Amino acid sequence: MNHFFNVKTLEEVFSLVDQFPAVGREIIDVGDACSRILAADLTAGRDMPGFRRATMDGYAVHAASTYGASEASPAWLELAGSVLMGDVPDFGLAPGQAASISTGGMLPKGADSVVMVEHTEAVDEGSVEIYKSVAPLQNVIDAAEDFARDQTVLADGTFIRPQEAGLAAGLGFSELTVYRVPRVGIISTGDEIIPITQEPGFGKIRDINSYSLAGFIQEAHALPVRYGIIKDNPASLKTACERALQECDMVLISGGSSVGTRDYTVEVLSSLADTQVLVHGMSVSPGKPTILAKSANKPVWGLPGQVVSAMVVVKIIVIPFLQRLQGYMKPVRQIRVPAKLTRNVSSAQGRRDFVRVVLEDNPFKNGPLEQEACPLLARPVLGKSGLIRTMIHADGLLEIGEHVEGLEKETLVDIILL
Amino acid sequence: MNHFFNVKTLEEVFSLVDQFPAVGREIIDVGDACSRILAADLTAGRDMPGFRRATMDGYAVHAASTYGASEASPAWLELAGSVLMGDVPDFGLAPGQAASISTGGMLPKGADSVVMVEHTEAVDEGSVEIYKSVAPLQNVIDAAEDFARDQTVLADGTFIRPQEAGLAAGLGFSELTVYRVPRVGIISTGDEIIPITQEPGFGKIRDINSYSLAGFIQEAHALPVRYGIIKDNPASLKTACERALQECDMVLISGGSSVGTRDYTVEVLSSLADTQVLVHGMSVSPGKPTILAKSANKPVWGLPGQVVSAMVVVKIIVIPFLQRLQGYMKPVRQIRVPAKLTRNVSSAQGRRDFVRVVLEDNPFKNGPLEQEACPLLARPVLGKSGLIRTMIHADGLLEIGEHVEGLEKETLVDIILL
Repeated sequence: MNHFFNVKTLEEVFSLVDQFPAVGREIIDVGDACSRILAADLTAGRDMPGFRRATMDGYAVHAASTYGASEASPAWLELAGSVLMGDVPDFGLAPGQAASISTGGMLPKGADSVVMVEHTEAVDEGSVEIYKSVAPLQNVIDAAEDFARDQTVLADGTFIRPQEAGLAAGLGFSELTVYRVPRVGIISTGDEIIPITQEPGFGKIRDINSYSLAGFIQEAHALPVRYGIIKDNPASLKTACERALQECDMVLISGGSSVGTRDYTVEVLSSLADTQVLVHGMSVSPGKPTILAKSANKPVWGLPGQVVSAMVVVKIIVIPFLQRLQGYMKPVRQIRVPAKLTRNVSSAQGRRDFVRVVLEDNPFKNGPLEQEACPLLARPVLGKSGLIRTMIHADGLLEIGEHVEGLEKETLVDIILL
Repeated sequence: MNHFFNVKTLEEVFSLVDQFPAVGREIIDVGDACSRILAADLTAGRDMPGFRRATMDGYAVHAASTYGASEASPAWLELAGSVLMGDVPDFGLAPGQAASISTGGMLPKGADSVVMVEHTEAVDEGSVEIYKSVAPLQNVIDAAEDFARDQTVLADGTFIRPQEAGLAAGLGFSELTVYRVPRVGIISTGDEIIPITQEPGFGKIRDINSYSLAGFIQEAHALPVRYGIIKDNPASLKTACERALQECDMVLISGGSSVGTRDYTVEVLSSLADTQVLVHGMSVSPGKPTILAKSANKPVWGLPGQVVSAMVVVKIIVIPFLQRLQGYMKPVRQIRVPAKLTRNVSSAQGRRDFVRVVLEDNPFKNGPLEQEACPLLARPVLGKSGLIRTMIHADGLLEIGEHVEGLEKETLVDIILL
């Protein structure tokens, strides 16, 4: 059996994401909703802000009463009252009248705009001079100007940032329906791997992957569950996999996916009930010996044991699958940071390369070509790809396509932040 | 008393950050360390990986035994044994000999490199042919090549990403000394503000700031503590402030900082023990009516009540102060995303403007000028600045300096991601 019978490009692997459904929903307090994904459309139950509101401190007026007003020729308005914050004014405003108001106050009936206090002068207790005209709706927010009643304000699948949480709170949603947090099981395999609390003898190495991979899962707002180290033994790996699949929504197995002497992962995955190996090998470097299986509805990944490769694979392909499980309706646009390459980088054709880079400030960014100069430089990290310190020094990953033989110094590239 | 006696530029406010010390330290499990800040240098207790290790599946060899090998003229090597993963090989390698080895295996004594399995062919049980020469240390990581014993691998003040957590685990640090998570108290003020569970009558508005500001604090890996809504009353505000200062490392008061009729925040802050108002007004838009006080060692912010202004101020200046408390040794470099402006944007001189923008893919990014075309466009969000929907639509903030009157369409700008 040819182990690499199923080598796929990154795009081909990515296209498999639709085979996996989102996790279930739950209802949580809006105060806990940041970084979660909304699992239902949110519809405004009322207009927002709900009344005509001042956005400046000053005087509510009929705009028409201020037309033509200037320093040289101020408009003189009669003071009809003062708006108390949070109260409904118990008076209306006729043309030629004004009412003092603070930012956030409700305009009296009849008023359509606010003159900033800086452009006024109180003449006496009963009148005020206006030095600058305003247009209707100037310095106010109208009753339905932010959102109108029955409008869908946030859609199912929206990532909840602080502003979305604030908006939901402002509309009175003290609870929100969101996708629950996916649990991601992490299994380390390899007879050379020992727990981090043990002192490694020659030939042994501490379990880095359980911790670094858990970090990426957490960073992506999911819950890592560590299942510890499983010896290179099909029966133990099968038992661990079955348990992890029962308890989690996705499983990562690190190690054991290379075509080595003890390559049990594919055999074990193939032996699980209702499980199909979709990918065995990805034309990506680092990360070639990556396995993806579908067990019932859940993705199971066989990741390279090599620590840097495992991290890169999680960053570039596991996280997008996780986002699908998390309930994002469409692929999350990964914002990349443009930077100028500091030197030539070579790459093999037919393979997608990910090169670690340091981002530095471009000393020429404020030069005469300011408008065209990229503010950042991308400097490839030197050192063998297996060294974890290359990931410690790196700020990001530079992706080089399959059909590119290399990139020249000074090329403008897009960096995936690490 | 001139309320705006103390208006400062953003740079001036930022320079005050050094007046505030970092919070204290605590010891936590390395599995919980992601997104925390290291509070002590981390020194390698041993070499890493600690032994000469294969980075490829293949054969461990003396490199010199392969020199000149090619498909046409392979080198013939005697098989001295097989390295078991995690074991110390119980045999050495003489010139002219080879040993099969898997990725991660320990090289036998004498071996200095590994030939990839793809460049070999097993002849019989006792010998292998090598089709490509290797150089010394090729396809291996040497004993101290990642980190050497006694080397400082991570410095006090380092933000712990997944790779730093993995490295610490790999060096056997099952616990790490980190700065504790700062607690940030959030107080909403204003007679017009009601709890989100209540139905607002005219003139009232639900408490958005307590939720949106808490979101930004959480996003910055600190702990928000909501103190609810305080009526516009100096005594209540003073009591709430004192309690929040006792329980938290930083306090945010939203509302009450404009020169309105009920501007109590400065008065209340001035009346607190051991408290000094450092800033009252910032030449920034939105965000002018921002207050910063120092109470004992703790920063207290008076934020605009207007929801968009409050969010922008937290993003641009409160978070950098929070990072100082969190233990970052130097200001965190905020990675900004270059983009091309889609239209002219005007700005007032003498004021730092922050304009909300949507980031869009540049349809010309793959055109003939690929190397110079910026992959993203920044489209300013339309709508009055007080509308929360402008923050919902926005992907980022465009900063325009005090000495710039505006920016022309097509200018390459840097966007702060929201």
